[in-house]
Amino acid sequence: MRMRKKKWAAGLLQERTDVVVADPVQYTGTWKTLIPCEKLHVEIGSGKGDYWIGMAHKYPSDGWIGIERNTDVAGIAVKKSAGQVLDTMKFIHGDAEDLRLWFAPKEVDVIHLNFSDPWPKKRNTKRRLTSDGFLDQYASVLADDGMIQFKTDNVKLFEYSLVSFSKAGWEFSEVSVDYRREPHEEDVITEYEQSFMDLGQPIYRAVLVKKHEKE
Amino acid sequence: MRMRKKKWAAGLLQERTDVVVADPVQYTGTWKTLIPCEKLHVEIGSGKGDYWIGMAHKYPSDGWIGIERNTDVAGIAVKKSAGQVLDTMKFIHGDAEDLRLWFAPKEVDVIHLNFSDPWPKKRNTKRRLTSDGFLDQYASVLADDGMIQFKTDNVKLFEYSLVSFSKAGWEFSEVSVDYRREPHEEDVITEYEQSFMDLGQPIYRAVLVKKHEKE
Repeated sequence: MRMRKKKWAAGLLQERTDVVVADPVQYTGTWKTLIPCEKLHVEIGSGKGDYWIGMAHKYPSDGWIGIERNTDVAGIAVKKSAGQVLDTMKFIHGDAEDLRLWFAPKEVDVIHLNFSDPWPKKRNTKRRLTSDGFLDQYASVLADDGMIQFKTDNVKLFEYSLVSFSKAGWEFSEVSVDYRREPHEEDVITEYEQSFMDLGQPIYRAVLVKKHEKE
Repeated sequence: MRMRKKKWAAGLLQERTDVVVADPVQYTGTWKTLIPCEKLHVEIGSGKGDYWIGMAHKYPSDGWIGIERNTDVAGIAVKKSAGQVLDTMKFIHGDAEDLRLWFAPKEVDVIHLNFSDPWPKKRNTKRRLTSDGFLDQYASVLADDGMIQFKTDNVKLFEYSLVSFSKAGWEFSEVSVDYRREPHEEDVITEYEQSFMDLGQPIYRAVLVKKHEKE
């Protein structure tokens, strides 16, 4: 089902200066000054914002930046955040291809990829958020002890991504082929995720850390 | 169901000198002279031998060595091979802990791990065939372009193993969370594997290569 065009989205994203950062480049290297926090989390592809909002409220001493490229979807996320915006929450309406322009080297602690678009066609491989071009960017902006938390319902994207992470030199600290088999109260379940769980479909997950040189 | 003790197994393993190598140490470094072949495959934990026999017949220009520690099970495998033994097939009744004694560095091309014992209890971690001690041995005996082909029905073993491979520096060249989703005629399906497929359970698989230093 194609989503109906949200005519109000672009306007809302401009108006909601309480949470939307219009020009993220101006904060490069200073995000932890803008958002005093222990850890800085960035969710790439926040969709309708449930994870971003839910996790920010669950971990209020951390900073949470949601990024979404699609104007209509970003509009929904920001609209949904009304009345729930914490000082630790910011939103970027933009393309993750620019990640390295927005964040200084090692500025981010955790990158979250939740149910990213699988871009199933081979010619669109480079658009997948776990393809090597993006992984290079993540390696750059993540702290030395930083990590990627990657979750998907899509088997093919999961399989592709594990190989892609491995080839790019990431180390797996956790892998699950059925993450919701056990309760994980530390990780917010969005409506979208719940819809797969209701169908009995497994949620695949991996946590990646930067490879450290062995002594 | 516990298997009934096979009183004949130990005797059979001694008699069947056509295929059982009683003292594998004497061939260290010379397996490809004993078995003239393009690639040398070693299956660790051959169980009842169906994969070892089936693959040897499917790829007769390669060498196929089955290894099984359990005397009764090894007896069944060797018994089953009667009338089907090719010059390219050998069997070792022994513990894979001795792998590095039997094979010289870089002597093996492919290591196969099929439905290995998951050893679920934490205190038995070191017995899992994908624990770091074993992975060190595999790295030693495998050629530079060698690989491990790992297949299991066991979710927990799969998840453990992916992390273990990654931490030990192996690179993933293939990952599948449902290997039999598509036909793979290149890989023999044993009765044991078929029994999981009949229950609709996924077969998990990964192919690992030695990590090459990036230029």
